[in-house]
Amino acid sequence: MVESRRIKLTIEYDGTDFVGWQSQQNGRAVQDVLENAASSLLQEPVRINGAGRTDAGVHARGYVAHFDTNSSLDLSTIHRGLNALLPEDITVHQMAEVDKNFHARFSASSRSYSYTISRRRISLDRKYVWILYYELDEDKIQQAVRLIRGTHDFTSFSKYSNDVEHCYCHVFDAQWDSLDDSFNFTIRSNRFLFGMVRIIVGTLVDVGRGKISLDEFKETFEKKERSALFTVAPVQGLVLESVRYDKNEYELVKKILEELKK
Amino acid sequence: MVESRRIKLTIEYDGTDFVGWQSQQNGRAVQDVLENAASSLLQEPVRINGAGRTDAGVHARGYVAHFDTNSSLDLSTIHRGLNALLPEDITVHQMAEVDKNFHARFSASSRSYSYTISRRRISLDRKYVWILYYELDEDKIQQAVRLIRGTHDFTSFSKYSNDVEHCYCHVFDAQWDSLDDSFNFTIRSNRFLFGMVRIIVGTLVDVGRGKISLDEFKETFEKKERSALFTVAPVQGLVLESVRYDKNEYELVKKILEELKK
Repeated sequence: MVESRRIKLTIEYDGTDFVGWQSQQNGRAVQDVLENAASSLLQEPVRINGAGRTDAGVHARGYVAHFDTNSSLDLSTIHRGLNALLPEDITVHQMAEVDKNFHARFSASSRSYSYTISRRRISLDRKYVWILYYELDEDKIQQAVRLIRGTHDFTSFSKYSNDVEHCYCHVFDAQWDSLDDSFNFTIRSNRFLFGMVRIIVGTLVDVGRGKISLDEFKETFEKKERSALFTVAPVQGLVLESVRYDKNEYELVKKILEELKK
Repeated sequence: MVESRRIKLTIEYDGTDFVGWQSQQNGRAVQDVLENAASSLLQEPVRINGAGRTDAGVHARGYVAHFDTNSSLDLSTIHRGLNALLPEDITVHQMAEVDKNFHARFSASSRSYSYTISRRRISLDRKYVWILYYELDEDKIQQAVRLIRGTHDFTSFSKYSNDVEHCYCHVFDAQWDSLDDSFNFTIRSNRFLFGMVRIIVGTLVDVGRGKISLDEFKETFEKKERSALFTVAPVQGLVLESVRYDKNEYELVKKILEELKK
């Protein structure tokens, strides 16, 4: 008898035609499409565990998931077979056998997202950007970005969700880069609350265009209350870039959160 | 009475959902969509002249067209108005009033195309590349690219077309660049025959993967006969990058072609 193996997948997907990562009653979910392809390839029911939910329309360049299989097929055969069965809007880039202690969601130490804003109307690649004509005060945006880094309660920057114990996130890094025709925002945090990146980006834009002041930004952040004040950036500019599994990083965040509980 | 003005447009479009530039009996043509938007904005029938046909599915980053109008609206109003009326897969980037001698097609001295091949499966941006897993012999490709530069009869690299007088093209430049995960081919020529770039790219790939030898490439090129031998690269990787209107360049090509007729 073959012992079951745990397999880690790194996945790219174009979120345009998906209702998000997670299986839902209605609509095309990335998880379902992957599970169907894997079950059909491996001739056994396959349950795929992802690193976390992504909203409808969010893209991913380096999403991570895992599954267990009793199949004796070698990894490269499974890899090629999966890609052959998958629709063109999902690609499995890497596949590795991992220890049974590995869990795509619970072992993850941080996730990185990018958000792209085009400063001029474009037609090619328009499905991956937010087109925005406002002139933005970059200095103010950079000051707001600095406030986001570190450990904070991000309640003010999230949509309602009742399945979280607390709203503290440790933001390892956040960067706002201005290029000729675009802005690129990247953020890496141990976790992200529902809608968090899109609300942060929308709010940074509000600060940049003077709709809210830096003080208002600070006050609302510190209030730890969901606010109707902020703009939610449209989904198509958001890409989950990667998921890290770093033990030191994981322990560091654990320690920080334990300190906060005291 | 306002005298009619000639206006030059620089346009980007995503070719995915178009039957090409030119108006056709059936299907959505870029020209039709632009003419409808301009006619409705300017409240007069507008006929738009393009720099040349592009096939169904070909993209454009810097297509050039012109039209005449009796409208007294200022340029920036027309520019903003057009973009407001146009669907998101067409963008007018620049607009300028030009001399009545200017003609988007007949005054053009050269056109530049790019073609992108992805060396690995991708899901994001997949609508703008040809995904190709073959290992390619780059040295052979570079040798074939060198044969393309200059003035040649490109009959062998075109699809049937009975509306051209001759098949000579002057290729100012052709470059094949290898990047980590992709190949990028760019070519600038005074004109392009029907299907020419896609047949050149398909044939360069045939040479690179050893399906045909460099000698076969040379022989077929010199035969000046349409060949069933060659691969036609799929349309989605092709982008019309720009159109030049350079008098010196124009005169140079004219002289070269006159020499050939002697």
